Amino acid sequence: MNVTLIVADAPTASYAAVFTSNAFCGAPVTLGRRRMHEGLPLQALCINNKVSNVCAAGDGVADAETVCSAVAAALDLPGGSSSVLPSSTGVIGWKLPVDAMVKAVPDAVGDLQRDSLLPAAKGIMTTDRYPKLRSVEACGGRLVGIAKGAGMIEPNMATMLSFILTDLDVPRSELQRMLAAAADSSFNCMSVDADQSTSDTLVCISSATTPLKASRDQEALAEFEGALRQLCEELSGDVARNGEGTSHVIRVRVSGSPTREIARGVGKAVVNSPLFKTAVAGNDPNVGRLVGAVGSYLGRAAPELELGGVSMRLGGRTIFKQGSFDLDSEAEAELSAHLKQALITGEGGVSLPYPPHERCVEVEVELGNGDEAITVVGSDLTREYVDINADYRS
Amino acid sequence: MNVTLIVADAPTASYAAVFTSNAFCGAPVTLGRRRMHEGLPLQALCINNKVSNVCAAGDGVADAETVCSAVAAALDLPGGSSSVLPSSTGVIGWKLPVDAMVKAVPDAVGDLQRDSLLPAAKGIMTTDRYPKLRSVEACGGRLVGIAKGAGMIEPNMATMLSFILTDLDVPRSELQRMLAAAADSSFNCMSVDADQSTSDTLVCISSATTPLKASRDQEALAEFEGALRQLCEELSGDVARNGEGTSHVIRVRVSGSPTREIARGVGKAVVNSPLFKTAVAGNDPNVGRLVGAVGSYLGRAAPELELGGVSMRLGGRTIFKQGSFDLDSEAEAELSAHLKQALITGEGGVSLPYPPHERCVEVEVELGNGDEAITVVGSDLTREYVDINADYRS
Repeated sequence: MNVTLIVADAPTASYAAVFTSNAFCGAPVTLGRRRMHEGLPLQALCINNKVSNVCAAGDGVADAETVCSAVAAALDLPGGSSSVLPSSTGVIGWKLPVDAMVKAVPDAVGDLQRDSLLPAAKGIMTTDRYPKLRSVEACGGRLVGIAKGAGMIEPNMATMLSFILTDLDVPRSELQRMLAAAADSSFNCMSVDADQSTSDTLVCISSATTPLKASRDQEALAEFEGALRQLCEELSGDVARNGEGTSHVIRVRVSGSPTREIARGVGKAVVNSPLFKTAVAGNDPNVGRLVGAVGSYLGRAAPELELGGVSMRLGGRTIFKQGSFDLDSEAEAELSAHLKQALITGEGGVSLPYPPHERCVEVEVELGNGDEAITVVGSDLTREYVDINADYRS
Repeated sequence: MNVTLIVADAPTASYAAVFTSNAFCGAPVTLGRRRMHEGLPLQALCINNKVSNVCAAGDGVADAETVCSAVAAALDLPGGSSSVLPSSTGVIGWKLPVDAMVKAVPDAVGDLQRDSLLPAAKGIMTTDRYPKLRSVEACGGRLVGIAKGAGMIEPNMATMLSFILTDLDVPRSELQRMLAAAADSSFNCMSVDADQSTSDTLVCISSATTPLKASRDQEALAEFEGALRQLCEELSGDVARNGEGTSHVIRVRVSGSPTREIARGVGKAVVNSPLFKTAVAGNDPNVGRLVGAVGSYLGRAAPELELGGVSMRLGGRTIFKQGSFDLDSEAEAELSAHLKQALITGEGGVSLPYPPHERCVEVEVELGNGDEAITVVGSDLTREYVDINADYRS
């Protein structure tokens, strides 16, 4: 187990967070919601892996508070334990190892440094194969973020855990709105395995030491919001690339939709279809399964939609239009080649510690029924996913 | 490719059918709906495997009609092609091999016999490992049914194809209502892989040669309906046991629900959770994933539900109540033993051609919020599922 600390020089009122909508959420999520509601200044994030502190026997919230208190005491924080936000990830149902964590706090404090977030990005990993760290400059300041998560990933707001730090001074209410919107078009458009975590937490915390530079406030806020969205999209892309057993990332662009929710539903239906996912894993352009998945969702969610204008592309090539497929052996060969060039594993299918490139399996679905569009990112389904998850706790 | 025929001695007006709700349904489904709407007497079912006749180039409905005409001509049916109901299963997007099918009709006619449905149950198989055939006696007559399906199984009415024959004379409108209700509590409560087929079809056809025996009509109808439901439940259980790569069948009993739809949603969330499915495949009682899946569904579909009364059992043992787990190493050992005794594969995990027993992984979820209950059946997720589906078309 790792205990990772992220600490600001001073308490800050500039922070925002969104959490899982899982009904059996973790104790750190319950406590995090309480911190957001109380709105006291925050100064530290305390994150552990291995044990998620979800539905454990005893009082998980009290356990998390005990660890927060130990952190506040060790750092002599003026705001005390209520200025510490806890996050936990790992096995569901196990009790938080409070004593071991409290003992680990002095070492975690000793490891604090100003040079890099990389040790924190590494410290929060579980089955992740590589640390996820991204940075964007905006408005004369910077946003830097880390994320963890590789399985139990279909965030209904965020990946298991993601933390974004910035120096830019953004009003708290604006920050909360922007973070929720950025989550909606990034983490909430991503799925590794359709299993929503009980611990999903996305936090943005600002030292508020750099004023926004721009000719007008609204322009600066828009620039900051664009940077925040970019960072979230890059981090969620990293999470998909790093999915458990992932050998292809699938990117689905859905356009021409009457609503954003239908567009998201179509994209999710594609990236969550076990049959399409396994076909992609086998470099088999079995596009019948793509149409099957889209039709299954539309038949359920929008049965009255006129489908004559639906078309689909794979790797930029039209494969389906006006109700039927447009394929021949030459097209099949091209589609296979597209799947093969998007493989992110090494020789012999071996998972690499770092992804060699950011190419995706590109799917486009045009619904011909409106102006809404969305991009959803997902993973294929491999033997390695099954192997990892058949004995995750051992 | 097999062409399988099921033929009644005379045209009958006593039949019913329910079909997939997939928006891109197959041409045989379109034609089947037309036959139901027209209501002309039926006399024959013509079923092929390998090619599903879904979204193929050209006119799939005309292709299916051509085959029906060939069948009607070869059998000299008084009702002609409109008394033949076609069904197709197999790869999506490929054109029906009409010429090959028409050529195969005389042999299929030559193979007709009165002894057994087993050759038909075998003839309609694709990746099925064994033929599925069940029989129930009721009301002085008999119902016998066959089914096919092993993957792309989350029927939104029925498994890919299932055909039920009876001699009992039931009014057509009653039969349609009963068949829809039986599908709702059997095939619609089952999922192998959450991928809904484009071809789902459940047909019940009666020769209407045996009047219902019972003291009163209502009693006889109720007895018949019970037998029909039992047959559908047995067949859908067979489909789950025979799921692609399935090594455990998971049976989830959800009770105490405010509505039937929430109960079904909870059950489906459990059997469709890749993480719970892989844990079961590994005989790992990782019940945190069970709670994660239930909470994910409830957080989305019924966020206002009071959860203090929720309890869960695995293999008859309570594992979760009043918001936390109730586990120790002895309980873990018992749960592992339960998972191992429910394995339906042979030595070394090898898939058997026939299931050795009908034991299931037994999950019970009590929601403590009402009186509705439902049973959902599903499969685990194994390496074999991935292997089968990474190169299904080759």
